[in-house]
Parts: sequence; structure tokens; C-alpha cells
Amino acid sequence: MKVLFVGTGLIGGSFSLAMRAGGFLSEAGGYSRNPANLDRSIALGIIDQKFDTLALGIQWADWIILSIPVDVISKQLPGILDQLRPGQVVIDFGSTKGKICEVVADHPHRAQFIAAHPIAGTEYSGPDAAFATLFEEKLMIICEGDKTAEKSLASFKKVCQGLKMRLELMEAKAHDRHLAYISHLSHITSFALSNAVLDKEKDGDIILELAGSGFASTVRLAKSSPEMWAPIFMENKEMVLEALSNFLQKAEDFKKMLEENDASGLQNFLESGRNIRRVIN
Amino acid sequence: MKVLFVGTGLIGGSFSLAMRAGGFLSEAGGYSRNPANLDRSIALGIIDQKFDTLALGIQWADWIILSIPVDVISKQLPGILDQLRPGQVVIDFGSTKGKICEVVADHPHRAQFIAAHPIAGTEYSGPDAAFATLFEEKLMIICEGDKTAEKSLASFKKVCQGLKMRLELMEAKAHDRHLAYISHLSHITSFALSNAVLDKEKDGDIILELAGSGFASTVRLAKSSPEMWAPIFMENKEMVLEALSNFLQKAEDFKKMLEENDASGLQNFLESGRNIRRVIN
Repeated sequence: MKVLFVGTGLIGGSFSLAMRAGGFLSEAGGYSRNPANLDRSIALGIIDQKFDTLALGIQWADWIILSIPVDVISKQLPGILDQLRPGQVVIDFGSTKGKICEVVADHPHRAQFIAAHPIAGTEYSGPDAAFATLFEEKLMIICEGDKTAEKSLASFKKVCQGLKMRLELMEAKAHDRHLAYISHLSHITSFALSNAVLDKEKDGDIILELAGSGFASTVRLAKSSPEMWAPIFMENKEMVLEALSNFLQKAEDFKKMLEENDASGLQNFLESGRNIRRVIN
Repeated sequence: MKVLFVGTGLIGGSFSLAMRAGGFLSEAGGYSRNPANLDRSIALGIIDQKFDTLALGIQWADWIILSIPVDVISKQLPGILDQLRPGQVVIDFGSTKGKICEVVADHPHRAQFIAAHPIAGTEYSGPDAAFATLFEEKLMIICEGDKTAEKSLASFKKVCQGLKMRLELMEAKAHDRHLAYISHLSHITSFALSNAVLDKEKDGDIILELAGSGFASTVRLAKSSPEMWAPIFMENKEMVLEALSNFLQKAEDFKKMLEENDASGLQNFLESGRNIRRVIN
């Protein structure tokens, strides 16, 4: 199978390496708005050849995998579906699914599209961050799978299982709501925490020395790519704002209890937060 | 050297195991308000014997190491210093230092006290969480070291270096300010995030499945002991409130930009937060 990777960074690049390692790839092609990334991807063995235009790549490929910012997916997906021959499949790996599913809901080639989201990643980005085992034992969420042709969906599922991934079907709205709380919100608090600390602590050595106290863990996600994340927040705006408002209310509750020396209130707040250990070991 | 560990949980227990492994201990005694912890600590080899009263333990020991909630340290430290013979040393490992230093500032035995804070820990607590290598390559902060007798301070430093720790002297106020931003604030955002998510996501399986998306990392500190942390926030109230207010302002800035679809503002916010990668690798 010939696969075109549109975007060959952490996610697309790792998927290519994993498919190759699993024997699912005959050839990998790449297209990117950033030509330097493609040359680097060839050097790293992520792709075998690059295409100068997206159209040439689409013409060549059996599968087309989109691992690019979600706003670019929403914008380009209908045009990509327009160009498909029968049998070709387009898969997107965007972190939001509602708007992407919406823009192609009534497209005549909708059955050739798979809306997917691999729950895997690191705080790093670009082809150099890619590695073949990123997806092992991780979750692949597929949204609105009933709108994809059965045969195409089955062959995608087979590849995911070959990559040792678990599969879960989810409604696009439910996906975006869960991800707003469990992923997008975590990224916002990390970026906000980083900004608050960098504003006040001008001495990087002090931050580094004290980072072992828990800071490094809570701020890790702030290293993530702004180019990928700004569009995620905007595409999932409504749910992200709801999650953020709920978080801010909790933080304000804590602040008020501390201001009022409400020891038992604080204790209860910490105890209830600590219940997360019953869920995540 | 005979060391009395007042509190034999994660920090005190690990320090005892490390001192023993380094050959610095002839005997370890334990005292706790929770007798079950002492029996467990004997079973785990953390202490050799337990004392029924703090006074009996103090009488027996050369060094007394306090690893208990900071409000209990503030309350009991003057009374402990009252009971010291010449040559005995009391060391506290509390996460706040200002108030603790203040309550014994004019104590006649002040020179026998070392205000210390090892920057090490995990989200777990109790004797079972203790392990001998917790402090290796970590930082030991000593506050107001000039108020401790030179010889006592030198012997404590020697033990820390023997445990492969780095040493740093810091003013108590500066310590509490830095820790408010770089440690205490991280714990508050973790607890608040956990509460916000647990409120909305009633299905623990969903949280667990999506936790790999970054959530687990940002919420890890919410597993920390409320008994230890509520007093830290209250003892460092002023600095914690300042840090929390600055964080809340950043999060509100983000919210406003998202509400107003301010794409370039969001991009700048993420870019500036991402600068943390220049400090923490």
C-alpha cells in the first residue's frame, strides 16, 4: 500500500515508521507546506519520496493520512475528497473531530473518509520527534465510523490493531467534549502556569533547580507546538470554554477558602481532588 | 549517630533509609502521632525502635529530624528546642520555611536548629512510599544557615553530600516565594484540574483511556497528601495567593482571547509559555 503523509511530524512521522515496521507500507510519500520537513523526513526514513503539490501526492496514493493543524484539515478536507478515485481512503488524525466531520458530512465521497484521533503524543514536535513505537498500547478513536465504507474502515482497523493499538468508536461531539476536559484543559493550565512562572521568576536557574518539586510535570505540555494547539482550542472553542470556566471556578473556590482560612474547606477540596488516584494509578 | 525520625513517611522514611545505606546511622528511632505507621516502619527497616512519647525519643537521640505537616512543626518546634541537651541537633524538612524560622528566631537553642527543605518527593505518601535513593542528585535547601552552630551545620551538610545531594543556602522569605510559584502553585492547579474533571466526567474508564493525552502528567500532584498540603498553603498563604492570582490572570487572559477569536493573541500566549523549554529540558 502506498500512503501519502500530509504532515510528517511527531504524529504522521511516527505512524509512517510504525506502518513500515509492521509491514503495512509498500511506499511512503510526503507532502508538507514546509519543504525542509520533507527533506528531513526522507533523511530519517519516514518517507521515501516527497511531492511538490498535494494534488500529485493524492493522485499517487492509496491512503492519505492528514497530521496537520486541525484548522488546515477543516479547510482542505473537502477539496481532497473531491479529488479521490474509488478505493482511495483519507484519514485525519486531528485532535478535534466535530468541525472536521461537519465540513464533509454531505460530501459525495464521505464514505472514503475516516475521522480518527490517536491518543498518543509527546510534548515534542517535528520529524525528529517521531518514533515507531509511539502508538503501541495506545487508543485510536474513530468518530462517525458508520459514515465510512465498511471495507475501508475494516482495513484501517486492521492496521491499527497491527500497530498494537486499542480501538474505540465515539460520537464526534462526545469526543470533543471529553477531550476538552481531559486533554485541552491540561494544555491550557500548563501554558498558563508556564507564563505565570516565567513572568515572575526571571532566573531560569532557580526554576530548573526547583523543577523537581512537581513543576516539571505540570508544565511539560507547555512545550507543545503552538501551531498545532492554537487551532485545537479555536475549533473546539465552545467545549474548551466550558471546561476552562469550570476549572477557573474550582481554582477561585480554592482561593476564597485560603483567603478565609477555611481549613476544613481546603482539606475537603484536596481530598476530593485526590480521588483521581482511584482512576489513574 | 542515633537519629529520631518524627514522621517516618515518604520524606522521613526515605531519609532514614538513605542515611542507613550511606553508613551515617547507628540506630534509627521513630515517633509518630500514628502508631500504625511506626510498626509498619519497623517492618520496612526504616526505624529500629519506636518511642511512645516525643520526649522519650528526644532524650535518646543525637539528631531529631521532623518530616511532619508544617503547621505541626511550627507548633511543636519551640517545645522540642526547650528539651535539647548541648550537642543535639533538630532538623526540619518542611516545605515552607518563613513561619518555622520565625517561631524559633529568638529561642535560646536556635543554634541547634537547621531549617532545611529537600526538593524531592513523589505523589505518594506514608512509609511504604519511602525508598533509599529518593534524594540522590536532588537539592537540599538550607535557610538561615548563619543562625545554626557551624559545627552542626557542617555535619548536616556532610551527610547531605554523602547522600549525593546538592546544597543551596537561601533566605527563608526567598524560599517561600520561589516555592509558591514553582511548587505550591503546581499542586493547586493539579488539585483544581482533578476536581473540575471528576465533577464532569463521571465515567472513570473514559478518564483512564484518555489520560495519555497529557492529563495524567498535569494531574499527578493531586495524588499528594492533603494532610501535608493544606498546611503548606496556609502557612505560605500570602505568597501562595500572589502566585495563584497571577496564574488566574493568565488563564483569564487566555479565556478572553479565545472568546474573542484572537488568533494572534492565542499564538503569542502559547509561544511565550513554550519558552519554558529553554529552562527545563
